[in-house]
Amino acid sequence: MTGRSEPLPVDRIAIVGLGLIGGSVARGLRASGYQGRLSGLVATAADVEQALALDLVDHADVDAGAVLADADLVIVAVPISAMEHIFACIARHAPATAVVTDVGSSKASVIAMAARIMPDRMPRFVPGHPISGTERSGLEAGFAGLFDNRRAILTPATDTDPDAIQLIQGMWERLGAEVIVTDATHHDEVLAATSHLPHVLAYTLVDTLAGMSERREIFEYAAGGFRDFTRIASSDPLLWRDIVCANRAPVLAALDRFMQDLGAVRDAIAADDRATLVAGFTRAKQARDQFAKRFQERRHGRTSV
Amino acid sequence: MTGRSEPLPVDRIAIVGLGLIGGSVARGLRASGYQGRLSGLVATAADVEQALALDLVDHADVDAGAVLADADLVIVAVPISAMEHIFACIARHAPATAVVTDVGSSKASVIAMAARIMPDRMPRFVPGHPISGTERSGLEAGFAGLFDNRRAILTPATDTDPDAIQLIQGMWERLGAEVIVTDATHHDEVLAATSHLPHVLAYTLVDTLAGMSERREIFEYAAGGFRDFTRIASSDPLLWRDIVCANRAPVLAALDRFMQDLGAVRDAIAADDRATLVAGFTRAKQARDQFAKRFQERRHGRTSV
Repeated sequence: MTGRSEPLPVDRIAIVGLGLIGGSVARGLRASGYQGRLSGLVATAADVEQALALDLVDHADVDAGAVLADADLVIVAVPISAMEHIFACIARHAPATAVVTDVGSSKASVIAMAARIMPDRMPRFVPGHPISGTERSGLEAGFAGLFDNRRAILTPATDTDPDAIQLIQGMWERLGAEVIVTDATHHDEVLAATSHLPHVLAYTLVDTLAGMSERREIFEYAAGGFRDFTRIASSDPLLWRDIVCANRAPVLAALDRFMQDLGAVRDAIAADDRATLVAGFTRAKQARDQFAKRFQERRHGRTSV
Repeated sequence: MTGRSEPLPVDRIAIVGLGLIGGSVARGLRASGYQGRLSGLVATAADVEQALALDLVDHADVDAGAVLADADLVIVAVPISAMEHIFACIARHAPATAVVTDVGSSKASVIAMAARIMPDRMPRFVPGHPISGTERSGLEAGFAGLFDNRRAILTPATDTDPDAIQLIQGMWERLGAEVIVTDATHHDEVLAATSHLPHVLAYTLVDTLAGMSERREIFEYAAGGFRDFTRIASSDPLLWRDIVCANRAPVLAALDRFMQDLGAVRDAIAADDRATLVAGFTRAKQARDQFAKRFQERRHGRTSV
């Protein structure tokens, strides 16, 4: 962990959802030396047992009141379609002073939902998104280093309490992440392009291939390039349905732009227009090589040169 | 290396092109204990020097006659657009008894080209394709284990000499690969779906994103999923232009099918048709998880269960 060692100024943290992200926050906080109480709100009695058996939290419960009633900080780490219900639970049970944050991959729609369901709490709500998923999910998926040298994006409003922003920023830094503050619209456009669209493409490609008559050979002959290209198609379908629908307009804009470009590439292939093809492939290779180099540098904690 | 230890029944092997594939064949043959002479035909005097400095081959030259004149086996490992010239060199310089194979990612077009340029040699020509690329290229890219536990596909004709097929099969097995014999049309359809189409999508996506106004943030915010999804966009643009054009009809067929499916996904997102989305994402996840499991098993040399 490369996070700061300053203590987090909260004694009781409630994590709602202990999947990949929530579970990794719990493990990461513990690994960073957080001494306060960690509580987890989960969906079933079996999850309670498993969360305690995995030692993710000090206390786990299916009862929102029991988990939220005395929380200083509430971290909402459930799929977006479950957030409406969770925000209602927070409005009812959490102390008025509690700082609330979420980890949803779409921000404008989550903010609109929060503003509708818990309007009085908006000054204490710091919308967030750690860019650090893997294709895994479930209570066993989390690990302490998930956010290490990754980005965490916060999209507070102009009237968000500064101390609430500071708390959430400190938490992500403690977990090893670099915090970026930007506006929700910009976040949603960028993530639609860089994450949501690739997931749609990977899911669709694998589904297309699975529907072909040579299905068996296709997957038998596929190699390492295909494995990497399709890794994100192993992600949780419900989670990604939620994200794509929650961020509909920016996803459609990015998808339409891509489909237009793909149509042009199709025409170039059909016309044997080799100059157009090699120009596009070369631009892509240069951009991707540059990205890979910077990503590698970031991952190793070095400043980009 | 898991290859067989039976000696290859040829004394002089000529490898045309010492990039990722040709260089890995050279290194792999040496690592497997091949004692005969390895010669390399390369494009420039600088390549000759580098090939010898890297100890890829015993002899390297830019002169086709010098490399091919006494070869028992010629392995053509150049981009498809360079094969026409190489086949002409083989027709002119190689012994009539020499067995010839290639490593092109498209087979029907390579076979048609060979039949046009070196018709008398077709019984000795064994079209091949090791499914084992990485995104790297160049004389330094190769390594002995590249074909270990990978597939090598051969697409001989009905009148290909059995001893020629046996020689090429033995060579790939010696390099650690599992050999599959199938027909060229089938190979081309399957590879279009599983390799050529994904490369087109990855190149096009990165080029689309590179053309967006938020370009800087897009690549700054992108994470590990994006890195894996776009890895193949770092592949050699000229090589892939060649492959896509050489395998035009199957690539267009796979691309059209994908674009149709993507259009349906787009409509489902626009209509908030969550059931359609989750059904498709789930089919994809199941197919991809199953592929990943089998791929992992193959890679570790275990038989699929």
